[in-house]
Amino acid sequence: MRIDIITCSPELLESPLRHFTFQRALTQKLLTLHIHNLRDYTAYKHGKIDDKPYGGAAGMVLMIEPIAHCMRSLQKERTYDEIIYMAPDGELLTQETIHSYSLKQNIILLCGHYKGIDERVRTHFITREISVGDYVLSGGELPALLLVDAIVRVIPAVLSDASSALTDSFQNGLIAPPVYTRPYNYEGIKVPEVLLSGNHQAIQKWSQQEAINRTQQRRPALIDPIMQQD
Amino acid sequence: MRIDIITCSPELLESPLRHFTFQRALTQKLLTLHIHNLRDYTAYKHGKIDDKPYGGAAGMVLMIEPIAHCMRSLQKERTYDEIIYMAPDGELLTQETIHSYSLKQNIILLCGHYKGIDERVRTHFITREISVGDYVLSGGELPALLLVDAIVRVIPAVLSDASSALTDSFQNGLIAPPVYTRPYNYEGIKVPEVLLSGNHQAIQKWSQQEAINRTQQRRPALIDPIMQQD
Repeated sequence: MRIDIITCSPELLESPLRHFTFQRALTQKLLTLHIHNLRDYTAYKHGKIDDKPYGGAAGMVLMIEPIAHCMRSLQKERTYDEIIYMAPDGELLTQETIHSYSLKQNIILLCGHYKGIDERVRTHFITREISVGDYVLSGGELPALLLVDAIVRVIPAVLSDASSALTDSFQNGLIAPPVYTRPYNYEGIKVPEVLLSGNHQAIQKWSQQEAINRTQQRRPALIDPIMQQD
Repeated sequence: MRIDIITCSPELLESPLRHFTFQRALTQKLLTLHIHNLRDYTAYKHGKIDDKPYGGAAGMVLMIEPIAHCMRSLQKERTYDEIIYMAPDGELLTQETIHSYSLKQNIILLCGHYKGIDERVRTHFITREISVGDYVLSGGELPALLLVDAIVRVIPAVLSDASSALTDSFQNGLIAPPVYTRPYNYEGIKVPEVLLSGNHQAIQKWSQQEAINRTQQRRPALIDPIMQQD
Protein backbone atom coordinates (compact mmCIF):
# COMPACT_ATOMS: atom_id res chain seq x y z
CA MET A 1 0.00 0.00 0.00
CA ARG A 2 1.17 3.51 -0.83
CA ILE A 3 0.00 6.67 0.94
CA ASP A 4 0.90 10.16 -0.30
CA ILE A 5 0.34 12.99 2.16
CA ILE A 6 0.12 16.54 0.79
CA THR A 7 0.78 19.14 3.47
CA CYS A 8 2.12 22.63 4.07
CA SER A 9 3.62 21.49 7.42
CA PRO A 10 5.73 18.42 6.60
CA GLU A 11 7.87 19.03 9.72
CA LEU A 12 4.83 18.27 11.87
CA LEU A 13 4.72 14.70 10.58
CA GLU A 14 8.35 13.83 11.27
CA SER A 15 8.46 12.27 14.71
CA PRO A 16 5.13 10.44 14.64
CA LEU A 17 6.09 8.78 11.36
CA ARG A 18 9.31 7.53 12.94
CA HIS A 19 7.20 5.72 15.53
CA PHE A 20 7.41 1.94 15.77
CA THR A 21 3.92 1.12 14.45
CA PHE A 22 4.64 2.95 11.22
CA GLN A 23 8.23 1.75 11.13
CA ARG A 24 7.22 -1.89 11.28
CA ALA A 25 4.90 -1.44 8.31
CA LEU A 26 7.54 0.51 6.40
CA THR A 27 10.41 -1.91 7.00
CA GLN A 28 8.19 -4.85 6.08
CA LYS A 29 7.34 -3.00 2.84
CA LEU A 30 3.63 -3.30 3.62
CA LEU A 31 3.40 0.47 3.36
CA THR A 32 5.26 3.23 1.58
CA LEU A 33 4.66 6.77 2.75
CA HIS A 34 5.48 9.88 0.75
CA ILE A 35 5.22 13.38 2.17
CA HIS A 36 4.78 16.26 -0.28
CA ASN A 37 5.40 19.85 0.73
CA LEU A 38 2.79 22.01 -0.98
CA ARG A 39 5.31 24.85 -1.19
CA ASP A 40 7.34 22.76 -3.66
CA TYR A 41 4.42 22.90 -6.10
CA THR A 42 3.65 26.59 -6.25
CA ALA A 43 4.51 28.86 -9.14
CA TYR A 44 4.07 31.93 -6.94
CA LYS A 45 7.00 33.78 -5.35
CA HIS A 46 8.30 33.00 -1.85
CA GLY A 47 6.51 29.64 -1.72
CA LYS A 48 3.13 31.38 -1.51
CA ILE A 49 0.33 28.79 -1.33
CA ASP A 50 -2.56 30.71 0.21
CA ASP A 51 -4.49 33.93 -0.25
CA LYS A 52 -7.37 35.88 1.27
CA PRO A 53 -10.84 34.49 0.64
CA TYR A 54 -13.16 36.16 -1.87
CA GLY A 55 -16.03 37.97 -0.18
CA GLY A 56 -13.94 39.43 2.62
CA ALA A 57 -14.14 36.66 5.25
CA ALA A 58 -11.35 36.29 7.83
CA GLY A 59 -8.44 33.84 7.54
CA MET A 60 -6.33 32.51 4.68
CA VAL A 61 -7.36 29.91 2.11
CA LEU A 62 -5.10 27.38 0.36
CA MET A 63 -5.08 28.06 -3.39
CA ILE A 64 -6.17 25.47 -5.94
CA GLU A 65 -3.11 25.75 -8.20
CA PRO A 66 -0.35 24.23 -6.02
CA ILE A 67 -2.71 21.48 -4.85
CA ALA A 68 -3.80 20.66 -8.41
CA HIS A 69 -0.19 20.70 -9.61
CA CYS A 70 0.90 18.28 -6.86
CA MET A 71 -2.03 15.91 -7.41
CA ARG A 72 -1.61 15.83 -11.16
CA SER A 73 2.09 15.04 -10.95
CA LEU A 74 1.27 12.12 -8.64
CA GLN A 75 -1.57 10.94 -10.87
CA LYS A 76 0.75 10.94 -13.88
CA GLU A 77 2.79 8.22 -12.17
CA ARG A 78 0.00 5.92 -10.96
CA THR A 79 -3.74 5.56 -10.44
CA TYR A 80 -5.12 6.48 -7.04
CA ASP A 81 -8.03 4.64 -5.44
CA GLU A 82 -9.02 7.64 -3.35
CA ILE A 83 -8.01 11.28 -3.03
CA ILE A 84 -9.05 12.12 0.50
CA TYR A 85 -9.37 15.56 2.00
CA MET A 86 -9.15 15.65 5.80
CA ALA A 87 -12.12 17.97 6.38
CA PRO A 88 -13.91 18.92 9.62
CA ASP A 89 -17.21 18.54 7.78
CA GLY A 90 -16.33 15.32 5.94
CA GLU A 91 -17.96 11.97 6.65
CA LEU A 92 -17.10 10.79 10.15
CA LEU A 93 -14.31 8.23 10.25
CA THR A 94 -15.41 4.74 11.32
CA GLN A 95 -13.60 1.46 11.84
CA GLU A 96 -15.39 0.12 8.76
CA THR A 97 -13.95 2.88 6.57
CA ILE A 98 -10.51 2.19 7.99
CA HIS A 99 -10.77 -1.48 7.05
CA SER A 100 -11.89 -0.65 3.53
CA TYR A 101 -8.94 1.75 3.10
CA SER A 102 -6.48 -0.88 4.34
CA LEU A 103 -7.29 -2.91 1.20
CA LYS A 104 -6.50 -0.07 -1.23
CA GLN A 105 -3.34 0.25 -3.31
CA ASN A 106 -2.76 4.01 -3.57
CA ILE A 107 -4.27 6.80 -1.52
CA ILE A 108 -3.64 10.55 -1.41
CA LEU A 109 -4.36 12.41 1.82
CA LEU A 110 -4.68 16.18 1.51
CA CYS A 111 -4.23 18.18 4.73
CA GLY A 112 -5.99 21.53 4.86
CA HIS A 113 -4.76 24.45 6.88
CA TYR A 114 -5.57 28.05 7.70
CA LYS A 115 -9.22 28.76 6.94
CA GLY A 116 -9.57 25.84 4.56
CA ILE A 117 -8.99 25.14 0.89
CA ASP A 118 -10.48 26.62 -2.23
CA GLU A 119 -13.85 24.92 -2.71
CA ARG A 120 -12.96 23.99 -6.29
CA VAL A 121 -10.35 21.51 -5.00
CA ARG A 122 -13.13 19.76 -3.11
CA THR A 123 -15.56 19.66 -6.01
CA HIS A 124 -13.08 18.79 -8.77
CA PHE A 125 -10.21 16.76 -7.29
CA ILE A 126 -11.30 15.12 -4.05
CA THR A 127 -13.03 11.72 -4.15
CA ARG A 128 -13.76 11.49 -0.43
CA GLU A 129 -13.79 13.81 2.57
CA ILE A 130 -13.05 12.37 5.99
CA SER A 131 -13.50 13.96 9.40
CA VAL A 132 -12.01 12.43 12.52
CA GLY A 133 -14.66 14.13 14.66
CA ASP A 134 -16.90 17.17 15.14
CA TYR A 135 -14.31 19.63 16.41
CA VAL A 136 -11.91 22.17 14.94
CA LEU A 137 -8.16 21.66 14.64
CA SER A 138 -5.43 23.90 13.29
CA GLY A 139 -4.90 21.66 10.27
CA GLY A 140 -5.39 18.27 8.67
CA GLU A 141 -1.97 16.88 9.65
CA LEU A 142 -2.91 15.29 12.97
CA PRO A 143 -6.08 13.79 11.45
CA ALA A 144 -4.00 12.41 8.55
CA LEU A 145 -1.53 10.81 10.98
CA LEU A 146 -4.43 9.39 12.93
CA LEU A 147 -5.95 7.90 9.78
CA VAL A 148 -2.64 6.38 8.70
CA ASP A 149 -2.10 4.94 12.19
CA ALA A 150 -5.57 3.40 12.17
CA ILE A 151 -5.09 1.95 8.66
CA VAL A 152 -1.60 0.61 9.37
CA ARG A 153 -2.84 -1.28 12.44
CA VAL A 154 -5.27 -3.32 10.38
CA ILE A 155 -3.00 -4.16 7.45
CA PRO A 156 -2.52 -7.91 7.98
CA ALA A 157 0.92 -8.78 9.43
CA VAL A 158 1.74 -5.28 10.68
CA LEU A 159 0.81 -5.98 14.29
CA SER A 160 2.97 -8.73 15.78
CA ASP A 161 -0.06 -10.01 17.67
CA ALA A 162 -3.01 -10.05 15.29
CA SER A 163 -5.35 -11.68 17.81
CA SER A 164 -4.85 -8.59 19.98
CA ALA A 165 -6.24 -6.33 17.24
CA LEU A 166 -9.21 -8.62 16.78
CA THR A 167 -10.32 -8.05 20.37
CA ASP A 168 -9.99 -4.25 20.16
CA SER A 169 -12.98 -2.01 20.72
CA PHE A 170 -15.28 -1.62 17.67
CA GLN A 171 -13.76 -4.62 15.86
CA ASN A 172 -16.77 -6.79 16.73
CA GLY A 173 -19.31 -4.01 17.24
CA LEU A 174 -18.68 -3.96 20.98
CA ILE A 175 -16.47 -1.95 23.29
CA ALA A 176 -13.62 -4.02 24.72
CA PRO A 177 -14.10 -5.37 28.27
CA PRO A 178 -11.94 -4.05 31.13
CA VAL A 179 -8.41 -5.46 31.41
CA TYR A 180 -6.26 -6.00 34.48
CA THR A 181 -2.63 -6.90 34.99
CA ARG A 182 -0.22 -7.41 37.88
CA PRO A 183 -0.19 -6.67 40.77
CA TYR A 184 -3.26 -8.59 41.86
CA ASN A 185 -3.70 -6.36 44.90
CA TYR A 186 -2.96 -2.66 44.49
CA GLU A 187 -3.45 -0.82 47.78
CA GLY A 188 -6.40 -3.06 48.56
CA ILE A 189 -8.01 -2.78 45.11
CA LYS A 190 -8.08 -6.30 43.70
CA VAL A 191 -8.50 -7.87 40.28
CA PRO A 192 -11.92 -9.57 39.77
CA GLU A 193 -11.62 -13.16 41.04
CA VAL A 194 -13.00 -14.75 37.89
CA LEU A 195 -9.91 -13.65 35.92
CA LEU A 196 -7.70 -15.71 38.23
CA SER A 197 -9.98 -18.74 38.22
CA GLY A 198 -8.34 -20.49 35.29
CA ASN A 199 -11.88 -21.32 34.13
CA HIS A 200 -11.72 -20.16 30.52
CA GLN A 201 -15.43 -20.54 29.93
CA ALA A 202 -16.25 -18.40 32.97
CA ILE A 203 -13.66 -15.80 31.92
CA GLN A 204 -15.08 -15.63 28.40
CA LYS A 205 -18.63 -15.28 29.72
CA TRP A 206 -17.57 -12.52 32.13
CA SER A 207 -15.65 -10.66 29.39
CA GLN A 208 -18.54 -10.87 26.97
CA GLN A 209 -21.00 -9.59 29.58
CA GLU A 210 -18.67 -6.73 30.58
CA ALA A 211 -18.28 -5.79 26.91
CA ILE A 212 -22.05 -5.72 26.45
CA ASN A 213 -22.58 -3.71 29.67
CA ARG A 214 -19.93 -1.22 28.76
CA THR A 215 -21.26 -0.80 25.23
CA GLN A 216 -24.80 -0.28 26.56
CA GLN A 217 -23.53 2.39 28.93
CA ARG A 218 -21.11 4.17 26.62
CA ARG A 219 -22.19 3.53 23.04
CA PRO A 220 -25.83 2.35 23.11
CA ALA A 221 -26.13 3.08 19.38
CA LEU A 222 -23.55 0.36 18.64
CA ILE A 223 -25.47 -2.33 20.47
CA ASP A 224 -28.99 -1.65 19.23
CA PRO A 225 -28.73 -3.63 15.97
CA ILE A 226 -27.11 -6.57 17.83
CA MET A 227 -29.91 -6.70 20.40
CA GLN A 228 -32.50 -6.59 17.63
CA GLN A 229 -30.96 -9.61 15.94
CA ASP A 230 -31.49 -11.73 19.07
CA MET B 1 -2.92 26.84 31.47
CA ARG B 2 -0.75 23.82 32.20
CA ILE B 3 -1.08 20.46 30.47
CA ASP B 4 0.85 17.37 31.61
CA ILE B 5 0.97 14.47 29.17
CA ILE B 6 1.84 11.02 30.53
CA THR B 7 3.05 8.69 27.78
CA CYS B 8 5.27 5.72 27.06
CA SER B 9 6.17 7.21 23.65
CA PRO B 10 7.38 10.76 24.35
CA GLU B 11 9.40 10.75 21.11
CA LEU B 12 6.15 10.59 19.16
CA LEU B 13 5.12 14.00 20.48
CA GLU B 14 8.32 15.85 19.58
CA SER B 15 7.77 17.34 16.15
CA PRO B 16 4.05 18.17 16.44
CA LEU B 17 4.71 20.06 19.68
CA ARG B 18 7.34 22.15 17.93
CA HIS B 19 4.66 23.28 15.47
CA PHE B 20 3.78 26.95 15.28
CA THR B 21 0.28 26.77 16.79
CA PHE B 22 1.68 25.24 19.95
CA GLN B 23 4.78 27.39 19.85
CA ARG B 24 2.79 30.60 19.79
CA ALA B 25 0.86 29.54 22.90
CA LEU B 26 4.06 28.43 24.62
CA THR B 27 6.08 31.55 23.87
CA GLN B 28 3.18 33.75 24.95
CA LYS B 29 3.09 31.75 28.20
CA LEU B 30 -0.58 31.01 27.65
CA LEU B 31 0.28 27.33 27.89
CA THR B 32 2.95 25.23 29.53
CA LEU B 33 3.31 21.65 28.36
CA HIS B 34 5.08 18.91 30.28
CA ILE B 35 5.74 15.48 28.87
CA HIS B 36 6.31 12.62 31.31
CA ASN B 37 7.82 9.34 30.22
CA LEU B 38 6.05 6.54 32.07
CA ARG B 39 9.27 4.53 32.10
CA ASP B 40 10.79 7.13 34.44
CA TYR B 41 8.19 6.22 37.07
CA THR B 42 8.50 2.45 37.24
CA ALA B 43 10.17 0.53 40.05
CA TYR B 44 10.48 -2.55 37.83
CA LYS B 45 13.69 -3.50 36.06
CA HIS B 46 14.50 -2.43 32.48
CA GLY B 47 11.82 0.29 32.54
CA LYS B 48 9.07 -2.32 32.49
CA ILE B 49 5.65 -0.65 32.53
CA ASP B 50 3.31 -3.32 31.13
CA ASP B 51 2.43 -6.95 31.70
CA LYS B 52 0.12 -9.65 30.34
CA PRO B 53 -3.55 -9.30 31.20
CA TYR B 54 -5.15 -11.54 33.83
CA GLY B 55 -7.48 -14.10 32.31
CA GLY B 56 -5.25 -14.92 29.36
CA ALA B 57 -6.37 -12.35 26.76
CA ALA B 58 -3.97 -11.23 24.01
CA GLY B 59 -1.88 -8.06 24.15
CA MET B 60 -0.04 -6.16 26.89
CA VAL B 61 -1.62 -3.93 29.54
CA LEU B 62 -0.07 -0.84 31.17
CA MET B 63 0.38 -1.46 34.92
CA ILE B 64 -1.22 0.73 37.55
CA GLU B 65 1.91 1.36 39.63
CA PRO B 66 3.99 3.57 37.28
CA ILE B 67 0.88 5.54 36.28
CA ALA B 68 -0.18 6.04 39.92
CA HIS B 69 3.37 7.03 40.87
CA CYS B 70 3.54 9.64 38.09
CA MET B 71 0.10 11.09 38.83
CA ARG B 72 0.73 11.32 42.57
CA SER B 73 4.02 13.11 42.14
CA LEU B 74 2.27 15.67 39.91
CA GLN B 75 -0.63 16.02 42.32
CA LYS B 76 1.76 16.71 45.18
CA GLU B 77 2.83 19.88 43.37
CA ARG B 78 -0.56 21.28 42.36
CA THR B 79 -4.26 20.56 42.07
CA TYR B 80 -5.54 19.24 38.74
CA ASP B 81 -8.95 20.19 37.34
CA GLU B 82 -9.17 17.02 35.30
CA ILE B 83 -7.20 13.80 34.88
CA ILE B 84 -8.18 12.67 31.42
CA TYR B 85 -7.61 9.25 29.91
CA MET B 86 -7.60 9.21 26.10
CA ALA B 87 -9.81 6.14 25.69
CA PRO B 88 -11.46 4.69 22.56
CA ASP B 89 -14.62 4.14 24.61
CA GLY B 90 -14.57 7.49 26.42
CA GLU B 91 -17.12 10.24 25.84
CA LEU B 92 -16.86 11.57 22.30
CA LEU B 93 -14.91 14.82 22.03
CA THR B 94 -17.00 17.85 21.08
CA GLN B 95 -16.23 21.51 20.48
CA GLU B 96 -18.14 22.31 23.69
CA THR B 97 -15.85 20.09 25.77
CA ILE B 98 -12.84 21.72 24.13
CA HIS B 99 -14.08 25.18 25.11
CA SER B 100 -14.69 24.08 28.70
CA TYR B 101 -11.16 22.64 28.91
CA SER B 102 -9.63 25.84 27.55
CA LEU B 103 -10.79 27.57 30.74
CA LYS B 104 -9.08 25.09 33.11
CA GLN B 105 -5.83 25.71 34.97
CA ASN B 106 -4.20 22.27 35.16
CA ILE B 107 -4.97 19.15 33.20
CA ILE B 108 -3.32 15.72 33.01
CA LEU B 109 -3.68 13.70 29.80
CA LEU B 110 -2.90 10.00 30.10
CA CYS B 111 -2.10 8.18 26.84
CA GLY B 112 -2.84 4.48 26.80
CA HIS B 113 -0.97 2.01 24.66
CA TYR B 114 -0.77 -1.69 23.85
CA LYS B 115 -4.01 -3.39 24.85
CA GLY B 116 -5.03 -0.67 27.27
CA ILE B 117 -4.45 0.20 30.90
CA ASP B 118 -5.27 -1.62 34.10
CA GLU B 119 -8.93 -0.92 34.80
CA ARG B 120 -8.14 0.25 38.33
CA VAL B 121 -6.42 3.33 36.91
CA ARG B 122 -9.69 4.22 35.20
CA THR B 123 -11.88 3.66 38.26
CA HIS B 124 -9.57 5.23 40.87
CA PHE B 125 -7.49 7.96 39.22
CA ILE B 126 -9.20 9.20 36.08
CA THR B 127 -11.81 11.97 36.31
CA ARG B 128 -12.79 11.95 32.63
CA GLU B 129 -12.37 9.68 29.62
CA ILE B 130 -12.26 11.24 26.18
CA SER B 131 -12.46 9.56 22.80
CA VAL B 132 -11.65 11.43 19.60
CA GLY B 133 -13.84 9.02 17.61
CA ASP B 134 -15.14 5.46 17.25
CA TYR B 135 -12.05 3.83 15.80
CA VAL B 136 -8.95 2.08 17.10
CA LEU B 137 -5.47 3.63 17.17
CA SER B 138 -2.14 2.27 18.33
CA GLY B 139 -2.08 4.62 21.33
CA GLY B 140 -3.42 7.74 22.98
CA GLU B 141 -0.61 10.01 21.82
CA LEU B 142 -2.16 11.25 18.56
CA PRO B 143 -5.53 11.81 20.29
CA ALA B 144 -3.74 13.74 23.07
CA LEU B 145 -1.98 15.95 20.50
CA LEU B 146 -5.27 16.48 18.74
CA LEU B 147 -6.97 17.51 22.00
CA VAL B 148 -4.16 19.92 22.89
CA ASP B 149 -4.26 21.42 19.39
CA ALA B 150 -8.02 21.92 19.63
CA ILE B 151 -7.76 23.48 23.11
CA VAL B 152 -4.84 25.74 22.21
CA ARG B 153 -6.76 27.18 19.25
CA VAL B 154 -9.55 28.46 21.47
CA ILE B 155 -7.42 29.94 24.25
CA PRO B 156 -8.05 33.65 23.71
CA ALA B 157 -5.11 35.46 22.09
CA VAL B 158 -3.39 32.32 20.76
CA LEU B 159 -4.69 32.70 17.22
CA SER B 160 -3.50 35.90 15.62
CA ASP B 161 -6.86 36.25 13.92
CA ALA B 162 -9.56 35.49 16.48
CA SER B 163 -12.39 36.37 14.11
CA SER B 164 -11.17 33.53 11.89
CA ALA B 165 -11.70 30.98 14.69
CA LEU B 166 -15.17 32.33 15.36
CA THR B 167 -16.30 31.47 11.85
CA ASP B 168 -14.89 27.90 11.99
CA SER B 169 -17.14 24.91 11.61
CA PHE B 170 -19.06 23.92 14.78
CA GLN B 171 -18.35 27.25 16.53
CA ASN B 172 -21.89 28.45 15.87
CA GLY B 173 -23.56 25.06 15.49
CA LEU B 174 -23.18 25.18 11.71
CA ILE B 175 -20.62 23.86 9.27
CA ALA B 176 -18.59 26.63 7.67
CA PRO B 177 -19.64 27.76 4.18
CA PRO B 178 -17.38 27.08 1.17
CA VAL B 179 -14.41 29.42 0.68
CA TYR B 180 -12.69 30.54 -2.50
CA THR B 181 -9.51 32.43 -3.24
CA ARG B 182 -7.53 33.58 -6.26
CA PRO B 183 -7.45 32.84 -9.15
CA TYR B 184 -11.02 33.79 -10.03
CA ASN B 185 -10.99 31.52 -13.05
CA TYR B 186 -9.22 28.18 -12.72
CA GLU B 187 -9.37 26.25 -16.00
CA GLY B 188 -12.87 27.55 -16.57
CA ILE B 189 -14.14 26.86 -13.03
CA LYS B 190 -15.10 30.22 -11.60
CA VAL B 191 -15.74 31.65 -8.15
CA PRO B 192 -19.46 32.32 -7.39
CA GLU B 193 -20.27 35.84 -8.65
CA VAL B 194 -21.83 36.99 -5.39
CA LEU B 195 -18.44 36.82 -3.62
CA LEU B 196 -17.06 39.41 -6.05
CA SER B 197 -20.10 41.68 -5.87
CA GLY B 198 -18.83 43.84 -3.02
CA ASN B 199 -22.37 43.65 -1.64
CA HIS B 200 -21.68 42.62 1.95
CA GLN B 201 -25.28 41.93 2.77
CA ALA B 202 -25.67 39.63 -0.23
CA ILE B 203 -22.39 37.87 0.62
CA GLN B 204 -23.47 37.33 4.21
CA LYS B 205 -26.84 35.98 3.11
CA TRP B 206 -25.21 33.62 0.62
CA SER B 207 -22.67 32.41 3.21
CA GLN B 208 -25.34 31.78 5.83
CA GLN B 209 -27.49 29.86 3.34
CA GLU B 210 -24.53 27.78 2.18
CA ALA B 211 -23.66 27.00 5.81
CA ILE B 212 -27.23 25.88 6.49
CA ASN B 213 -27.37 23.80 3.29
CA ARG B 214 -24.05 22.15 4.03
CA THR B 215 -25.02 21.40 7.61
CA GLN B 216 -28.33 19.89 6.50
CA GLN B 217 -26.50 17.67 4.03
CA ARG B 218 -23.54 16.65 6.16
CA ARG B 219 -24.53 16.99 9.81
CA PRO B 220 -28.35 17.11 9.98
CA ALA B 221 -28.20 16.35 13.73
CA LEU B 222 -26.47 19.70 14.33
CA ILE B 223 -29.16 21.73 12.64
CA ASP B 224 -32.27 20.12 14.09
CA PRO B 225 -32.40 22.12 17.33
CA ILE B 226 -31.79 25.37 15.41
CA MET B 227 -34.64 24.69 13.02
CA GLN B 228 -36.93 23.89 15.93
CA GLN B 229 -36.21 27.26 17.52
CA ASP B 230 -37.51 29.10 14.47
